[in-house]
Amino acid sequence: MSANQASVKQDQVNEYLINLGQQAKAASFILATLSAKQKNHLLQTISQSLAEHAEVILAANAKDVIAAKANGLTDAMIDRLMLDEGRLAGIIGDIDNVIALADPIGKEAASQLLDNGLRLTQRSVPLGVVGVIYEARPNVTVDIAVLALKTGNAVILRGGKETIESNKVLSEVIRGALTSLNLPEGAVQLIDSPERAIVSGLLRLDKYVDMIIPRGGHTLQRLCAEQSSIPVILGGIGICHLLVDKSADLSRAIDVIANAKVQRPTVCNALDTLLVDQAIASDFVPKIAAHLHSLGVRFYACDQAQGYLEGLGFDVSAADDESFSTEWLSLTLGIKVVDNIDGAISHIRQYSSGHSEAILTDDIHAASYFMNQVDSAAVYVNASTRFTDGSQFGLGAEVAVSTQKLHARGPMALDALTTYKWLAWGDYTSRK
Amino acid sequence: MSANQASVKQDQVNEYLINLGQQAKAASFILATLSAKQKNHLLQTISQSLAEHAEVILAANAKDVIAAKANGLTDAMIDRLMLDEGRLAGIIGDIDNVIALADPIGKEAASQLLDNGLRLTQRSVPLGVVGVIYEARPNVTVDIAVLALKTGNAVILRGGKETIESNKVLSEVIRGALTSLNLPEGAVQLIDSPERAIVSGLLRLDKYVDMIIPRGGHTLQRLCAEQSSIPVILGGIGICHLLVDKSADLSRAIDVIANAKVQRPTVCNALDTLLVDQAIASDFVPKIAAHLHSLGVRFYACDQAQGYLEGLGFDVSAADDESFSTEWLSLTLGIKVVDNIDGAISHIRQYSSGHSEAILTDDIHAASYFMNQVDSAAVYVNASTRFTDGSQFGLGAEVAVSTQKLHARGPMALDALTTYKWLAWGDYTSRK
Repeated sequence: MSANQASVKQDQVNEYLINLGQQAKAASFILATLSAKQKNHLLQTISQSLAEHAEVILAANAKDVIAAKANGLTDAMIDRLMLDEGRLAGIIGDIDNVIALADPIGKEAASQLLDNGLRLTQRSVPLGVVGVIYEARPNVTVDIAVLALKTGNAVILRGGKETIESNKVLSEVIRGALTSLNLPEGAVQLIDSPERAIVSGLLRLDKYVDMIIPRGGHTLQRLCAEQSSIPVILGGIGICHLLVDKSADLSRAIDVIANAKVQRPTVCNALDTLLVDQAIASDFVPKIAAHLHSLGVRFYACDQAQGYLEGLGFDVSAADDESFSTEWLSLTLGIKVVDNIDGAISHIRQYSSGHSEAILTDDIHAASYFMNQVDSAAVYVNASTRFTDGSQFGLGAEVAVSTQKLHARGPMALDALTTYKWLAWGDYTSRK
Repeated sequence: MSANQASVKQDQVNEYLINLGQQAKAASFILATLSAKQKNHLLQTISQSLAEHAEVILAANAKDVIAAKANGLTDAMIDRLMLDEGRLAGIIGDIDNVIALADPIGKEAASQLLDNGLRLTQRSVPLGVVGVIYEARPNVTVDIAVLALKTGNAVILRGGKETIESNKVLSEVIRGALTSLNLPEGAVQLIDSPERAIVSGLLRLDKYVDMIIPRGGHTLQRLCAEQSSIPVILGGIGICHLLVDKSADLSRAIDVIANAKVQRPTVCNALDTLLVDQAIASDFVPKIAAHLHSLGVRFYACDQAQGYLEGLGFDVSAADDESFSTEWLSLTLGIKVVDNIDGAISHIRQYSSGHSEAILTDDIHAASYFMNQVDSAAVYVNASTRFTDGSQFGLGAEVAVSTQKLHARGPMALDALTTYKWLAWGDYTSRK
C-alpha cells in the first residue's frame, strides 16, 4: 500500500468514526430524557426480540464457531464464544435482572441555599456515549448494551472479531427494538470492521465519546492508556496476592487458598502469588503445595520456598521479577516466603495490579494493619480473593472491574455509568 | 544536539522522574495513615513556617518579578505572579480555612453482610500521588500542596517557569515543615527544571502517579489529553453561554448579562456567547449591546444581530465558527440570534466546552427544559455564569473546575482528591 492509499484509508476510517460518534451523541441526548419506566420498557422489548430471533442468532453464532474451528482457536476460546439455546436464555434472563435494578439517573442530592442566593443541587445524569472494546464473547454485546441503555447512555461496541457474525445479529436485534419504540438506533452501534486503525481512531474520538472501557488483556489496556484522549477505565488485570500470616489457622487456610487458586483459575480475581510468613513457612509451604499439586497446580517459588519443596516429587520453577509480575490465568502459582507482614506489604506494593489482596490471620492487629496498608481495589481478611465481582458484592450488575482510582474502583455497576451536573436557580442573580 | 546527546538527556529525564515518582509514592503510603489531627497539625506547621519565612519568600518572588519585567511579560501576568506581604498573608490565611474543613479520608460507607457471608464496606482513601501542572501563580503552589496534604496525598508540582524562584522557596518551606514533623519530604516535590521533556515524561509516569490535573489553557489541556497515560482531569476551559429567552424580564436581564461578561472577564466562568431569542432580538440586542459597549465590550455578532446593531456607532465583527469556538477571557462577546430555545440548545451542544450555561426566563417550562437538555457541568436559571467555583458553591476549597464527566464534574473540592477501597471480612470464607 502506498502512503497515498494509506492516507485515503485513514480518511475513510475517520469519516466512518465521526459519523458513528455524531449519531451516538445525538442519540444520547434523547436517551438522557427517558424515564425509568421508558427505559425498562425498552429493555423488555429487547428481551422479547432476542427471544423471537433465537434461531437467526444461533445460526450466526454457528458461523462464528465454524470460522473459529477453521482458524484453530483453542477449545476454551471456542467455548467462550459459543451460544446455544440455554446460554441465550441465560443472556435474556439477565436482562430481567437489570430491569429489576433501581435507575440511578435523575436523582438529585439534597439541595442547599447558598449565601449568594442561589439554590444549588447535583443531579445524576448519564455519561453520554460509552465506548467498549471487548473480547470474543457475544454475551458481553447484549450485557453492555443493556447496562448502557438502562442508564440512558449510548454505546459504541467493538467486540472480538471472532464473534463478528453473532455481534452483528445481536446488535441489529437491539437496534430494531430501539426503532420499534421510535428511539434512535444510533444509541447502540457496533463497529463491524476488524480494521485495527478503527480502534486507534475510536480512542481519539473525544469530541463524541465520554468514556472508554477496555475489557481485555494487558496489551489492550496499555494501548488504551497510552493512545486514548478519552478518559479510560483500566481494569480486569488481577495480579492477586494472599498472605498466610504467622497467626493464621493453617488447617482452615488450605481450603481458602485452594478456592482462590483453583475454583476458576482463568479469571482476574484468581490468586497469583501466595505469600507465607517465614515463621510458619517450613511447615506450611510443603503442606499447601502438596495439596495444590494434587489439584493440578504448578509453582514458581522463591529460593527459600524452593528449599522447602525439595523432595516432594514434583518440579518447581524459580520465581523471579517476571514471574511475580505475571497474571497467571491458569493453574500456576507463585510462592514467596516473607520475613513478616511488612515484607508481604512491600511485595504487594511492588507487584500488585491493585485488584484484590487477602490476608489469612487470627491476629486482629495484623488484619487491621493489612487493611490499612494495602492499597488495592479490594482487600480481604480471612476470605478468598475470588469474591471481587459485581454479583458477589451485591451490585446486581458488573460493567467491568476497575483497577484505577478515578471515578470507580473495583466492581463497577450502574452508578459507574453516570455522572452529575450542578443545577442552580437564582432570581436574576449576579455575583458580588 | 546529536541524536546520541538527545537520548542521554532523555535517560537523565527518565531517571530524574522515576526517582521523583518513587519518593512520592513511598511518601503517599505514610500520608495515607495519618489522622485528621495529624494532618491539620502539619498544615498548621506549614502555615507558621511560611509566616516565619516571609522575608525570603518575598525576596525570591522579587527575583521572579525582575526577570518577568526583563522578559517583557504583560502587566497582567506580572500582577498575577507578584507577592507582597498582604498577598502572602492571604495565602497563609487560606491554610486556616482548609484546616477547618472536614477530613474526607477514612470514612466508611454503611457496611453490609453479603449472602456469601462476607461483611463488606467501602472506605474513602487518598488517591496516592497527584501531579499538577499549573500557570505562573505562586499561590497555587501552596494551595495545591495544602489540599493534597489535607487529603493524605503526595503531590508533584510543576508551576510556570516564570515563578520558579518563588516556587522553589515555597516548596522548600513546606518540605521543611514535613521534615520537622518526621514526615517524608518526598510528599511535596517541585519540578524545578523548565525542560519540556519533563512534562511529557511526567504524563507517562503511570506507575507512580495516580492523577494529573492540568491547570492552564487549551494547549496544555490537549497535550495532557493526548499524551498522558495517567488519568487526567481536564477543565478550566469555559466557553460559556447565556440564553435570553423570549419570556425573560429584559430590564433585569441586563445586569445579569453585564455581570457574567464584565465583572471579571479573564476567568473561565465569564460569558463568551450571548444567545437571544429572535422574538425579542430586534428590541433587546441593541439595548444590551449599547450597555455592554459603554462598559468596554467588543462584539462578534451573527448576521441577524449585526443588522440590529447597525447605526449604533461602534464596530461589530462578523461571528463565525471560529469566534463561536473561542473562550474570550477578555471584554469580547459573541452574540447570536436563535430561532427558539431548541436553537439555543443546538448551538450550546455544538460549541460549549461543558463548563457553565445559563438561561434567563420567566417561563417555568423553558427553565426546566433548558436544565434537562443542556449537558454542562453547571446549568443556571436566572443567574450569572460567574458562580461556578468552589467557594461560591460552598465547597470551601477548589482544586480545579472539571469539564469532563468522570470522577468529578464542575468545581472539585477535597472529595475529588479521594478514592475508595472495598474492605471485606470473612471467616476463612471461600466462594461457592
